[in-house]
Amino acid sequence: MKRTERICRILQILTKNPNKDFSLGYFAALFDCAKSSVSQDMKTIRESVDEGGYGRVATTTGARGGVRYVPHISGEKALETLREIRRRFLETDRVLGSGFLYTSDIMFDPHIARGVAEIFARHFAESEATCVVTVETKGIAIAAFTAELLRLPLIVLRRESKISEGSTVSINYFSGSADRIQKMSLAKRAIQPGAKALIIDDFMRGGGSIKGIQDMLREFDAHAVGIGVMIVAESDHRKKIGDYFPLLLLDLDEKNDGVAGVRLNPKIEKDWFREKTPV
Amino acid sequence: MKRTERICRILQILTKNPNKDFSLGYFAALFDCAKSSVSQDMKTIRESVDEGGYGRVATTTGARGGVRYVPHISGEKALETLREIRRRFLETDRVLGSGFLYTSDIMFDPHIARGVAEIFARHFAESEATCVVTVETKGIAIAAFTAELLRLPLIVLRRESKISEGSTVSINYFSGSADRIQKMSLAKRAIQPGAKALIIDDFMRGGGSIKGIQDMLREFDAHAVGIGVMIVAESDHRKKIGDYFPLLLLDLDEKNDGVAGVRLNPKIEKDWFREKTPV
Repeated sequence: MKRTERICRILQILTKNPNKDFSLGYFAALFDCAKSSVSQDMKTIRESVDEGGYGRVATTTGARGGVRYVPHISGEKALETLREIRRRFLETDRVLGSGFLYTSDIMFDPHIARGVAEIFARHFAESEATCVVTVETKGIAIAAFTAELLRLPLIVLRRESKISEGSTVSINYFSGSADRIQKMSLAKRAIQPGAKALIIDDFMRGGGSIKGIQDMLREFDAHAVGIGVMIVAESDHRKKIGDYFPLLLLDLDEKNDGVAGVRLNPKIEKDWFREKTPV
Repeated sequence: MKRTERICRILQILTKNPNKDFSLGYFAALFDCAKSSVSQDMKTIRESVDEGGYGRVATTTGARGGVRYVPHISGEKALETLREIRRRFLETDRVLGSGFLYTSDIMFDPHIARGVAEIFARHFAESEATCVVTVETKGIAIAAFTAELLRLPLIVLRRESKISEGSTVSINYFSGSADRIQKMSLAKRAIQPGAKALIIDDFMRGGGSIKGIQDMLREFDAHAVGIGVMIVAESDHRKKIGDYFPLLLLDLDEKNDGVAGVRLNPKIEKDWFREKTPV
C-alpha cells in the first residue's frame, strides 16, 4: 500500500470516530507496516487536520501512546453556521404571532444541527460530561450530533411517561413560554447516579424547561456540568438559570409580533477570533 | 503545500459534506494549484475511499465535471452495527412486561444511530427522496443522521399540535402497540406538495404509525418513496403497510414477556455479501 493511501485510510478512521483513542500499533497491524511509519503518517495527518479547520489530532499519553481526533471547529467555520442561522431567523414568514416563531425547519436541518453541534463540541470539550441530556422534541437532532462528536450517550427527557419507558420519575415545572405547569418524565434506569450532564436545548425564553431538566437531574443524584442553548430570547430578563452558553441572542419585538434582531454571542466572537476580526 | 497534505484536506471536505457536489475547479482555486493536479489527487482519494468501506467518490457529469462523496457502508461494517444492536436487544433486563421493551438507550446511542443511518443511506441512495420524515420521538436521532448522509431536510411529525408550529394538519390513526386511537400533527408549511419522502422509524409492530405518516403525506399531496425501520416485531403478522425495509426482525415471546430472538434482515445478508459469507 502506498503511503498516501494509508494516510487517507487512517484519516477516514480517525474522523469517523471522534474522541476515540487509537494506538499507533492498531494502525500498524491494520496496514501491516512499522509503527514508525504510522508515526510519520500521523505528523502529516495532524498538520492537515490543523489546517482544515474541523478538528485536531491529539496525542494521548500512557503506556501505549496513541492518537485521537478531537472535533474543534474553527472560528471562521463557526461564524458561517451562526450567520446562516441568523439569516434564517430573520426570514419574514417565520413569525406566528404572540411572540412565537416557526423554527422546526431550522432545528431539524441536518446541516445546521451539525454546525451547531460542532460549536457546542468545541466549547464543552473540557467539560468532562458523561452524557448529553435534552428534552423532546426540537433539540434532539442538535443534541444527537453533539453527543456523537463528544462520544457520549444521549438521554432524552419525555413530556409524558410512556409504557415503553418502564418505571419513570416525573417532575412538574413552570414554563413561561407555555404560561402553565408542564411535566417531564424520565425512565428510572436512564441516568446513573453521579452522572455529569451536558444539557443541550434549541431555544430558551425564561429558562423554565432547562431548570426542569436540572431538577430532574437532582432526582437522579446527577448534575449539569454545562448548558448549551442554540438561541435565547433576550426579552425575558428574569432567567431562571445562571450559567449557560447561547450561540445566538434573539431580540423579539413583542409589540409587533416580529423579530427585532438576532446577534451572535459576543463571547464566541471574542474568544474564537483573538487573531482575526470577523467580518 | 505538499501533495499529501492537499489530498488530506480534500478528503476532509468531501467526507464532511456527503452528497454535495464539488467541481475540481473549486479545489484548484482553494489550494491554488492546477486542475490536473486535483484530478490526480482525486484518483488516490477515490481508491482509498473505496478500500475504506465507508463510502465512494462519485464523478458527476455535466459542463463542470465534479466529484461527490457518497456514503456507502460496506457489508462488513453494516454487520458490525447489526450484531451490536442484536446483542443489546438480547440483554435480559430490557423486558418491561406486556411485550414492551426498553429501547431508548439503544435508539439514542449516537454510535448505533449513526451505524443504522449508514445502512439506510446505502439502501435508499437511489430512492430520489426529497426529504426524510419521522414521527417523534425515538426515531429522531436515526432519522437526523440519515437525513445528513443523504443531504436532505428532516421533517418530524408531532404527537400534539403545538403553538410554535403555527397552523397544522392533524390525523388520527389506530396504534396496535398502544391499542388505541392516536394523533399526529404537522405544520402546514412543513412539506411542499409533490415531496417524495423517505420514512424512517425506530420500531414497528403492526405498522399503524407508519400508515399514519403515509396518511399525513397524502394530506400534503406528498408520498413515500421508501420506508426504513430499524427493528420490526415479527409476532404481529397483520402489517398495515406493504413494502418496508427492516434492519432487524424481533421475535417477541409474548407468553413469557421476553425476547425469543433477533435476526438480521436476510435481504441485507444476501445482497450485501455476494462475495463474502458473513460469519
